[in-house]
Amino acid sequence: MRARDIAEEYPVVNLDADALDAARLLVGHQLPGIVVTDTSGRPHSVLPGSQVLGFMIPSYIQDDPSLARVYDEAHADRVAARLAGRKVREVLPSRPTELPAVDPDATVIEVAALMARLRCPLVAVVENERVSGVITTTHLLDLILPRP
Amino acid sequence: MRARDIAEEYPVVNLDADALDAARLLVGHQLPGIVVTDTSGRPHSVLPGSQVLGFMIPSYIQDDPSLARVYDEAHADRVAARLAGRKVREVLPSRPTELPAVDPDATVIEVAALMARLRCPLVAVVENERVSGVITTTHLLDLILPRP
Repeated sequence: MRARDIAEEYPVVNLDADALDAARLLVGHQLPGIVVTDTSGRPHSVLPGSQVLGFMIPSYIQDDPSLARVYDEAHADRVAARLAGRKVREVLPSRPTELPAVDPDATVIEVAALMARLRCPLVAVVENERVSGVITTTHLLDLILPRP
Repeated sequence: MRARDIAEEYPVVNLDADALDAARLLVGHQLPGIVVTDTSGRPHSVLPGSQVLGFMIPSYIQDDPSLARVYDEAHADRVAARLAGRKVREVLPSRPTELPAVDPDATVIEVAALMARLRCPLVAVVENERVSGVITTTHLLDLILPRP
């Protein structure tokens, strides 16, 4: 089994994609993060769900739990609205999370070794500078764990 | 909405649980990690899928991608076998990943702020030193993103 055989097709988004759409894709596919490409389709970074939250929640609230506590439902709506009209590139931090990549011929052990070393929940399969699929840790474990 | 209202019930495992069972639960529920308690049921840590891989793949292979490449299918079986008969406590690293916890009264914003600050994909809802539920980043985003 090689990376190309086990990769799953998930939507990728580019830097100019709508951030709210990107967040909804992440939720809809129950992904740990969504793969981001540059505007010419080359792999760029990964946008984890916690980073989307990091953009939505102002940093003065992140840093002060007691302030977060007094936020009521109305504020929750305002937090959600922060994503509206934003592009993915605006939501990415200044130093985006690097996208771990393997080539389609990578063995299962190679993919597992990369995930283990980087402690990352997904890797992209990249061929000719294009993302051809994604392998998540849970999918890989599902493949290599012995059957009950 | 408070943490108690949005928490989902996922299985938790204790330090003496079978590591292979724990890995299968993680896969079966598509979780970013599984909550680990001590033997008296108190919250202990979180075991992410990548850490399970980290245990299965010997470190000399993690550190040498060219070695991982020559590993064939037979070796893959041997890697999977490393988990057999192990307890969760053996698979956890010497410094396990801290389990982020909130109390049942925590507001949605409080939970989101914690996830954002720690960049973690799940938090445990803890009441009377017991884990009463888990909130994942994708579940929380699903709740707070405006509907299309």
